[in-house]
Amino acid sequence: MPKKRKNPQRQPKRASKQVVLSSIKQEAKGVLDEVEKREFPRVVMPSRTTDNIVYDDKVGHYVLGGRKVVRSAGNIRHLKPLSQMVWGLSVARDLLDTEKTTTLRDVYYMAEGAEGLSFEDQSESDRIITDIESVLSCSREDFNVYPEERSAIFGDVLAEYTVKGYEGKRINLTMHPDGVMVGPALATAEFIETSADKVIAIEKGAMFSRFVEDQAWKRFHAVLIHTAGQAPRSTRKLIRRLNTELGLPVYMFADADPWGLHICQVIISGSANAAHISNLVTPKAKWAGVYATDITKYDLPSTKLTEMDLRRLKEIKRDVRYQRGRWKQEIDYFFKIGKKAEQEAFSKYGLSFIVDKYLKKRLDELGA
Amino acid sequence: MPKKRKNPQRQPKRASKQVVLSSIKQEAKGVLDEVEKREFPRVVMPSRTTDNIVYDDKVGHYVLGGRKVVRSAGNIRHLKPLSQMVWGLSVARDLLDTEKTTTLRDVYYMAEGAEGLSFEDQSESDRIITDIESVLSCSREDFNVYPEERSAIFGDVLAEYTVKGYEGKRINLTMHPDGVMVGPALATAEFIETSADKVIAIEKGAMFSRFVEDQAWKRFHAVLIHTAGQAPRSTRKLIRRLNTELGLPVYMFADADPWGLHICQVIISGSANAAHISNLVTPKAKWAGVYATDITKYDLPSTKLTEMDLRRLKEIKRDVRYQRGRWKQEIDYFFKIGKKAEQEAFSKYGLSFIVDKYLKKRLDELGA
Repeated sequence: MPKKRKNPQRQPKRASKQVVLSSIKQEAKGVLDEVEKREFPRVVMPSRTTDNIVYDDKVGHYVLGGRKVVRSAGNIRHLKPLSQMVWGLSVARDLLDTEKTTTLRDVYYMAEGAEGLSFEDQSESDRIITDIESVLSCSREDFNVYPEERSAIFGDVLAEYTVKGYEGKRINLTMHPDGVMVGPALATAEFIETSADKVIAIEKGAMFSRFVEDQAWKRFHAVLIHTAGQAPRSTRKLIRRLNTELGLPVYMFADADPWGLHICQVIISGSANAAHISNLVTPKAKWAGVYATDITKYDLPSTKLTEMDLRRLKEIKRDVRYQRGRWKQEIDYFFKIGKKAEQEAFSKYGLSFIVDKYLKKRLDELGA
Repeated sequence: MPKKRKNPQRQPKRASKQVVLSSIKQEAKGVLDEVEKREFPRVVMPSRTTDNIVYDDKVGHYVLGGRKVVRSAGNIRHLKPLSQMVWGLSVARDLLDTEKTTTLRDVYYMAEGAEGLSFEDQSESDRIITDIESVLSCSREDFNVYPEERSAIFGDVLAEYTVKGYEGKRINLTMHPDGVMVGPALATAEFIETSADKVIAIEKGAMFSRFVEDQAWKRFHAVLIHTAGQAPRSTRKLIRRLNTELGLPVYMFADADPWGLHICQVIISGSANAAHISNLVTPKAKWAGVYATDITKYDLPSTKLTEMDLRRLKEIKRDVRYQRGRWKQEIDYFFKIGKKAEQEAFSKYGLSFIVDKYLKKRLDELGA
């Protein structure tokens, strides 16, 4: 039985909430001061246009460059987005004050009810939320706007809730064998201690359940995470926290196709459209399969890459993040065989093959 | 604080597992006996063709009529499906014996690995699983084939696991504020006791979270269920069990559009293609909104019904289950206004309006 290790970096939720609240107040005060001085109020934020998004090889993810944009009430075209942003900041403050969580869809309907701000559609309210992320340098989850999708986690981690009504209550993440849902409460929980020595992120629900049932978590001392396809941002943040706070290396399993590759890459290095947020990436996470070469090595049931797959694969090949090592080799091999395979394909050899043989061998290969 | 009531109908999982296992053995023995008697082995099952599916008004759901089909090895065209079915029965037995769960996709890959049975695609292995459901008169979850989708539950219910490694462990379903995931473990758990007096099933995740955060579960003594769109079959079965075992009336909230209507209807009366399984329906469940008339009454943000919505609405109007009472009125009203609205539309009036005003009023109207 591995020893429990305490989290050396517990970060009380209150602190991050106070940081966000004080940034909101600072922005609001800036606007107010300018109005009182009879100047045109303005808000400054980093530009998110393509020419200001750069891949930073040193930190291993996309970041924004130095260009700024100014929203000023002195510009008639800025009046509407500036007012909308001030409204958005007040929504963010209310959400934090009342400890309620919401979704982008919900924010849109709140916007519909906001007099005189004439939001036209959800893309407009979504953009305001992204603007606020840029202004406050945090992600929308930090002011309680969560994705609708839920992923799941399972493993020997003791977590302590910080949400209203559950403050101080603790849950062990092996508590519920179907997996513990990753929503606002788990995303803001503190990690107290763990006996695990790695994280395994898994694309498909069937595989996640298999790994739980076949006790892969116990045998490999792993915290399992079901990403449910592309991992929602709160899940990516959770993976990062398991990596940085508890020091657990991260391994990722997805289908052997361009979409699976990208699910893993986004956990590692984020996406260009979240370049303004840095707390969602895990640069040292390792892609552990299913590789294109596994299709041949294990004679897996496979299907032909479709036109769309090939187009996506060509895009990926041009992406700087895929131009070396294992990524490059496997992408070349995809083109060579013209095939893809799903994680479940290993069931050809019986349900437990993937845990008993494949996973064990792959983790050994990667020195895990 | 409402009193806890014990479940008067606790049905130990072992029993249902033994029933399914003994049906499997009986079918297998039938085949074996015929082979030993040098007769052509055969399997008899109810026909699932459209002309044998009837809506039974008395029980309130679709059922199969009396027509049977015979699969006989004496018919060359039956040889393949009969062999495949025998293989499927052995998979079902293995799953129950080893207490592993799986998915239809996984079964397909296992089929790919089955020598000499030449499964062509997943629709073929899916059909075999449905055949086995018909032969055994149970649903595939009863032999551990589960959907990939997961819904969630939250409320004061004490449940006891029956899955391997967790036998006898208990969980209170208010344990995790993000909701407790409904997978194989929860689907087979026994309900021990509850203080709730109703079930509220909710289509959207954002609403489910809202109902949890705003303590709708406590104020209305409700067990909340997030169906995540069309409820997976294991969730429909769970709703039925809460209704029949614990005696809790069921109320359903979905978007005000033809798809939301049908989400509710399927919980009530099932679907024609599951007519061979009767333990998935809750005939007395009540549709509680969002009604078409609510769009006008609450001046909700709405959008035009699309071509596809209208086509679906016309189909639904012809369906016998929609031809009376509230259903009929609301469908007529949809056609009249030509609009639809989402559950989140109430956020126009602030995040808590739906719980504080709408839900309270609606439950009163329905005599809940």
